[in-house]
Amino acid sequence: MKWEANVRKVTPYVPGEQPKCTQMIKLNTNECPYPPSPGVAEAIAGISTEELRLYPDPEVGELRQALAEYYGVTKEQVFVGVGSDDVLATAFLTFFHSDRPLLFPDITYSFYEVWAELFGIPYERVPLKEDFHICAGDYKRENGGIIFPNPNAPTGMEESRELIEDIVGSNRDVVVIVDEAYVDFGADSVLSLTEKYDNLLVVQTFSKSRAMAGMRIGFAIGHPKLISYLNDVKFSFNSYTMNRTAIAAGVAALKDETYFRNTLERIIETRERTKAELKKLGFLFPDSKSNFIFATHPRLSAKSLYQACRERNIYLRYFDKPGIRDYLRISIGKEEEMHIFLDFLKHYIEQERG
Amino acid sequence: MKWEANVRKVTPYVPGEQPKCTQMIKLNTNECPYPPSPGVAEAIAGISTEELRLYPDPEVGELRQALAEYYGVTKEQVFVGVGSDDVLATAFLTFFHSDRPLLFPDITYSFYEVWAELFGIPYERVPLKEDFHICAGDYKRENGGIIFPNPNAPTGMEESRELIEDIVGSNRDVVVIVDEAYVDFGADSVLSLTEKYDNLLVVQTFSKSRAMAGMRIGFAIGHPKLISYLNDVKFSFNSYTMNRTAIAAGVAALKDETYFRNTLERIIETRERTKAELKKLGFLFPDSKSNFIFATHPRLSAKSLYQACRERNIYLRYFDKPGIRDYLRISIGKEEEMHIFLDFLKHYIEQERG
Repeated sequence: MKWEANVRKVTPYVPGEQPKCTQMIKLNTNECPYPPSPGVAEAIAGISTEELRLYPDPEVGELRQALAEYYGVTKEQVFVGVGSDDVLATAFLTFFHSDRPLLFPDITYSFYEVWAELFGIPYERVPLKEDFHICAGDYKRENGGIIFPNPNAPTGMEESRELIEDIVGSNRDVVVIVDEAYVDFGADSVLSLTEKYDNLLVVQTFSKSRAMAGMRIGFAIGHPKLISYLNDVKFSFNSYTMNRTAIAAGVAALKDETYFRNTLERIIETRERTKAELKKLGFLFPDSKSNFIFATHPRLSAKSLYQACRERNIYLRYFDKPGIRDYLRISIGKEEEMHIFLDFLKHYIEQERG
Repeated sequence: MKWEANVRKVTPYVPGEQPKCTQMIKLNTNECPYPPSPGVAEAIAGISTEELRLYPDPEVGELRQALAEYYGVTKEQVFVGVGSDDVLATAFLTFFHSDRPLLFPDITYSFYEVWAELFGIPYERVPLKEDFHICAGDYKRENGGIIFPNPNAPTGMEESRELIEDIVGSNRDVVVIVDEAYVDFGADSVLSLTEKYDNLLVVQTFSKSRAMAGMRIGFAIGHPKLISYLNDVKFSFNSYTMNRTAIAAGVAALKDETYFRNTLERIIETRERTKAELKKLGFLFPDSKSNFIFATHPRLSAKSLYQACRERNIYLRYFDKPGIRDYLRISIGKEEEMHIFLDFLKHYIEQERG
């Protein structure tokens, strides 16, 4: 068709499968295995039909204020969006407007490359070390910005606060984004470093630890100037991103700290038990501080195992990419789901041997 | 700060005020004065807390299917987003990737210019005729795309199907977007023309006629190829835009056709009565087919009247821009709200005379 000449052609990010069936063990998109605090459903049900006809607050003041109080910052240091992907996309568009390359690890969240391509941002994928760790020295050269997750995805590995501060401090002339989507599962957040470094933006999400992937809430914390630029771009794209139910749900979730901590504890316990069991079965994996384990097995094909699990309605994530195609990313599910999964693995390994 | 050199600096769109007070007559952002169908609140309240932890369907299949059935097209002809602004922003990014100028009217939805600036799209604002109508001939020249609302905003004026078809048919090598945000209030939709013209994208919203500004739902209908390109860009920006409550609410709203038609009828009746009253008071305005009236008064300053209304907690929209700074945009509220507003106008005019 003639109009196709003007079309921006892109290779989109492919999210993990979202199968429609309910009888499955879903360990493929790092969702929280437990529902959010009961207060969340109450808050959503409490929205009057009369409210729905009115635009939500475009400044999302209530949720930003709740986040500010929770994290001990001011509202002017908080930006919110439709999941952390929306926040990150907006941040790419806002901060990486440079001819110099954006830097991110070669093994990392694969959406970074997609955003860079979408917005025409030059970029370079910086190889991780052999052990999957980031080498700070690799990020001390001319660049237009830096982004990496901590813990990294899909490895689940944490980088030290010292290494991150080294990278942020050595790159004061660009924005450094630390994507902390999984930080609540036991890693150390660098949120407090945003007070010291005006070039550091920390991004988090309600989709994982806060059990609300279905509500689409993400946020960023940084210097008021960073947040103000982000808001300018947001208001140049869509004034009203957060609907009324998302705002109410987000505020309610932040109120129930006990429930939140208990949920995290359960997931971390299950993760540690799963690690021990996987080890017994001969799997190898970097030590995960997230709600997933990135595992490989010296004698098994990851792809075949992935497919075998899928046939038993156990969904894992497999990336058919150089450097990681021998690995499977296994989200931490409920304790009983992990039992079924581990039992299946035992049988599978026995079969392969026999 | 040193990192500011790499920042994309933009002048954002400024949405109408969303005052926090509840005791007001809100005629400033074209919301529906009546709530959505009771089925909508039921659908939202019916979402289980267990669902919230899971990502929504990234394809938004259920809502796209419901829209497809409602409008007599296929799911592959439907795209959905977080309000029509999100849909339009995505469409700008997708379809206007050209060195030739995007064309839109000089008096129109002011977000068009903001999106063009954000994405670095060259554009030209094409003057409307003296009577605020579009001249089809002005759009028959080299361009990188065309967009206009029908009815136009903030004039509320409808263009004929013939004029629109003339523009779409004369520009088969670019995408033409008709923004039908207000079409349900009595104008003629060109949706059916999408079957004939693969370069026509029609955008609509749930924020106005469907009384759900608070839920953020917009959609586009067009040739499957147009929709497929839009989806590629959406999946390169944010895989999961529509949260679970928005999907459920959208599907529920489409089911209650009787309620929808009754609401529209009430608003149209109030609009026509308001027109008659405004005329009696000496106001002049183009004949609106939308849920607002764009009015001027030969003896009154629009800005002063806007401010006087505001002091009485009556919110109107005023654009301090060349060509329209003598006008006020008045959303159609509830019958009783319009009475209070018109009474105030009477007193105001008497005072000004006296």
